[in-house]
Amino acid sequence: MTERRDGMDPASVATVIEILRQRFGDRLSTGAALRSQHANTLTWIANQPPDAVVFVNSAEEVAETMRICATHRVPLVPFGAGTSLEGQVNAPNGGISVDLSQLNRLIAINEQDLDCVIEAGMTRRDLAQHLKGTGLFFPVDPGTEEATLGGMASTRASGTTTVRYGTMRENVLSVRAVLPDGRIVRTARRARKSSSGYDLTRLLVGAEGTLGIITELTLRLYGVPEAILAAVCPFKTISGACAATIQAIQLGLGVARIEFLDALQIRACNVHSKLGLAETPTLFLEFHGTEAGAREQVEVFGEIARSEGALGFEWAERPEDRSRLWKARHDALWAVKSTWPGREAVVTDVCVPISRLAECVEATHEDIRQSGLIAPIVGHVGDGNFHVVALCDRAQSGEMQAIEGFLERLVERALAVDGTCSGEHGVGQGKMKYLAREHGAGLDVMRAIKAALDPQGIMNPGKMIA
Amino acid sequence: MTERRDGMDPASVATVIEILRQRFGDRLSTGAALRSQHANTLTWIANQPPDAVVFVNSAEEVAETMRICATHRVPLVPFGAGTSLEGQVNAPNGGISVDLSQLNRLIAINEQDLDCVIEAGMTRRDLAQHLKGTGLFFPVDPGTEEATLGGMASTRASGTTTVRYGTMRENVLSVRAVLPDGRIVRTARRARKSSSGYDLTRLLVGAEGTLGIITELTLRLYGVPEAILAAVCPFKTISGACAATIQAIQLGLGVARIEFLDALQIRACNVHSKLGLAETPTLFLEFHGTEAGAREQVEVFGEIARSEGALGFEWAERPEDRSRLWKARHDALWAVKSTWPGREAVVTDVCVPISRLAECVEATHEDIRQSGLIAPIVGHVGDGNFHVVALCDRAQSGEMQAIEGFLERLVERALAVDGTCSGEHGVGQGKMKYLAREHGAGLDVMRAIKAALDPQGIMNPGKMIA
Repeated sequence: MTERRDGMDPASVATVIEILRQRFGDRLSTGAALRSQHANTLTWIANQPPDAVVFVNSAEEVAETMRICATHRVPLVPFGAGTSLEGQVNAPNGGISVDLSQLNRLIAINEQDLDCVIEAGMTRRDLAQHLKGTGLFFPVDPGTEEATLGGMASTRASGTTTVRYGTMRENVLSVRAVLPDGRIVRTARRARKSSSGYDLTRLLVGAEGTLGIITELTLRLYGVPEAILAAVCPFKTISGACAATIQAIQLGLGVARIEFLDALQIRACNVHSKLGLAETPTLFLEFHGTEAGAREQVEVFGEIARSEGALGFEWAERPEDRSRLWKARHDALWAVKSTWPGREAVVTDVCVPISRLAECVEATHEDIRQSGLIAPIVGHVGDGNFHVVALCDRAQSGEMQAIEGFLERLVERALAVDGTCSGEHGVGQGKMKYLAREHGAGLDVMRAIKAALDPQGIMNPGKMIA
Repeated sequence: MTERRDGMDPASVATVIEILRQRFGDRLSTGAALRSQHANTLTWIANQPPDAVVFVNSAEEVAETMRICATHRVPLVPFGAGTSLEGQVNAPNGGISVDLSQLNRLIAINEQDLDCVIEAGMTRRDLAQHLKGTGLFFPVDPGTEEATLGGMASTRASGTTTVRYGTMRENVLSVRAVLPDGRIVRTARRARKSSSGYDLTRLLVGAEGTLGIITELTLRLYGVPEAILAAVCPFKTISGACAATIQAIQLGLGVARIEFLDALQIRACNVHSKLGLAETPTLFLEFHGTEAGAREQVEVFGEIARSEGALGFEWAERPEDRSRLWKARHDALWAVKSTWPGREAVVTDVCVPISRLAECVEATHEDIRQSGLIAPIVGHVGDGNFHVVALCDRAQSGEMQAIEGFLERLVERALAVDGTCSGEHGVGQGKMKYLAREHGAGLDVMRAIKAALDPQGIMNPGKMIA
């Protein structure tokens, strides 16, 4: 059993495990390897395994598990694919990991309504597979295809296409969720909009399982655009790349992706993905539209870029060239890991108003230099969101402290320009300490809501706000 | 003082009025005409005036008023312009109407970030005025220019442009609000997106002042499109108009407005706005884009419309023709009132998945015919949202009952196809009775949140959920 327990009674956990074993048979596991795999594994945050893992395959089974845990005040930690980056799936107080990966059925694709209804454990890859041939797609793209849609909703994920299509907030129409008392609610109807009642959908999206467990989602879909064009655009300076971005957004160009990679990140991508790009601040772009519309966008952007000191502007129309580009972008983290092998990658992100992006990225660059860190920067710059991957050699004394100081200053800089401590990675354990600074009295409001819906504090404790 | 009071102590109200008078001087009024104007005046719902009206001009004054009322357990009813349609500004339990119309300053226009910060009492008209010359606009258009942005946020308003630009939900980045205990919170930073904490912005947007009073908003702005084209497209059948709409949405045409008017509504508009259109189901459309992009959209839509049995397709490029068209659309309610003078207009709306729109509108038509009502239909059909204006002659016995029966069936039909009882008018008093049917256990969750944040129940009582 886990070491830290924060007042929990180990006998209760044993009782719950026994009850769940009788109910779920070998879908309940206490094996050490499986438990460890059901805790944080992707980042520098410690691995804190649950006491047991239960594989559920219906909302009713989630509700049953919830009621059993509630009776004995044992924590539950929802688990999708474990791809979260701030320790959201850890079990610092022990308890039961509720694995939703088998709850992954397609319920309906409503082509005329541009929506679909799926179970929460479905991965992005499987959803894309189901949508093949419909002419529709689900746009939110956090990078990995392994992520489950329930997990993406819970962490309010976004990614490369958010500049055009929004985050999970805008693209989840409704969820079905099991509340801490075992009741099942559906937060909204399938209508595109509604002004009926409090917005429970948006309350659960981004709540990281601290208010309940999402078991089903209704998602917005979009028609696959007639034409998709991609482009690569190197700049002399970071500020040039940012200024071009702002202009494109202001013109309402409808850019579908506009990604910034700094010189160091380009170097890593060149090595890992054999790209041969100039090692300078660079934008990767994608345009969606009709044939004529997309071409027009590319041309307008080309002009903007030139006026902001772009060193070139190459565009890729062939699907294979586009795929290569975006695969390189999605592999950015792996590129960094393989370029500096043996080091741990500390991944973080902040988001600021785009008018402050250039100064914020430049100040971050300078901070990295002064701190003597290796830390490439990539960003969804159309949203003002950027990521830093700081590479850490734990063997080298003081390096982790240097990184922690850097992370602290990064968040301070973001908050100072009216930005947020987390653009798309959520709060989990990693960003908890910043919430009071960011939200002030708002944090008390969040705590009041948490206490009202989960008075026992059994839902994913030790995360986000408590 | 008001007749109904639900356990409130009249002495408390008198005390609060006395305290507020000392604090606010002649910005506190108990005049009968003013009180009556600060209650529902636009619809068939009864006029229930507050005991007094206070004109505040800062968030701190709102907080002060809130604390005084909380001490004496006297209700507060926030008031913007009084243009809501479901009795949101009524004071069924008496109390203090907090008039925000003087809290209407512009705080900032952040052109590079495409956002602005304004006080909640600013009207749409004033906001448009402030944005003149910036090349930016705020798209949410519920019809009237008198509406305040705070009121629009509180009722989660939407309107003709929602199909392209979203509702207030998508376009409010952050609010500042005074909570029932007098504390002031800001719900989010100015960054475009965030995954930090519960979504308090979306909780307050649409809460109709039952959780607090919004005093400031940060709103998304958009670049004024290079080209705006409008078109009128008459159809043989309702289902033809709906089918064309679905196809346009599926193709991702980026239509900015797509409005349905039934034959009866066209007749009223012809009379009132001198349009000379054929009296048949008709779409009014608007396309935003670059010159080439908008033209391409119009052409593609023209083809779609022909394939769905359009009787014609005329487009208006000149700004004055466009304005005339949209003025006629926005005047639809006045057109109805003037075409059938002396009758009261019972205004309602529902929203359904667009695949079910045609059947729902047709069944509603048939219901109107069988009920012997005069009730034109207009709809934001790209969202699946439609309005019915039922004309009532109260002198005619049984007519109001007939309308009430009709409204009940309208909501039942919407809920039966996974729609909502209110697309954009909110809940107020008029739609309260439908919330249990629509939300089931979700209504208990809303009540738990309300109890947690407003334990005394002083914020806009008798609305939405209590």
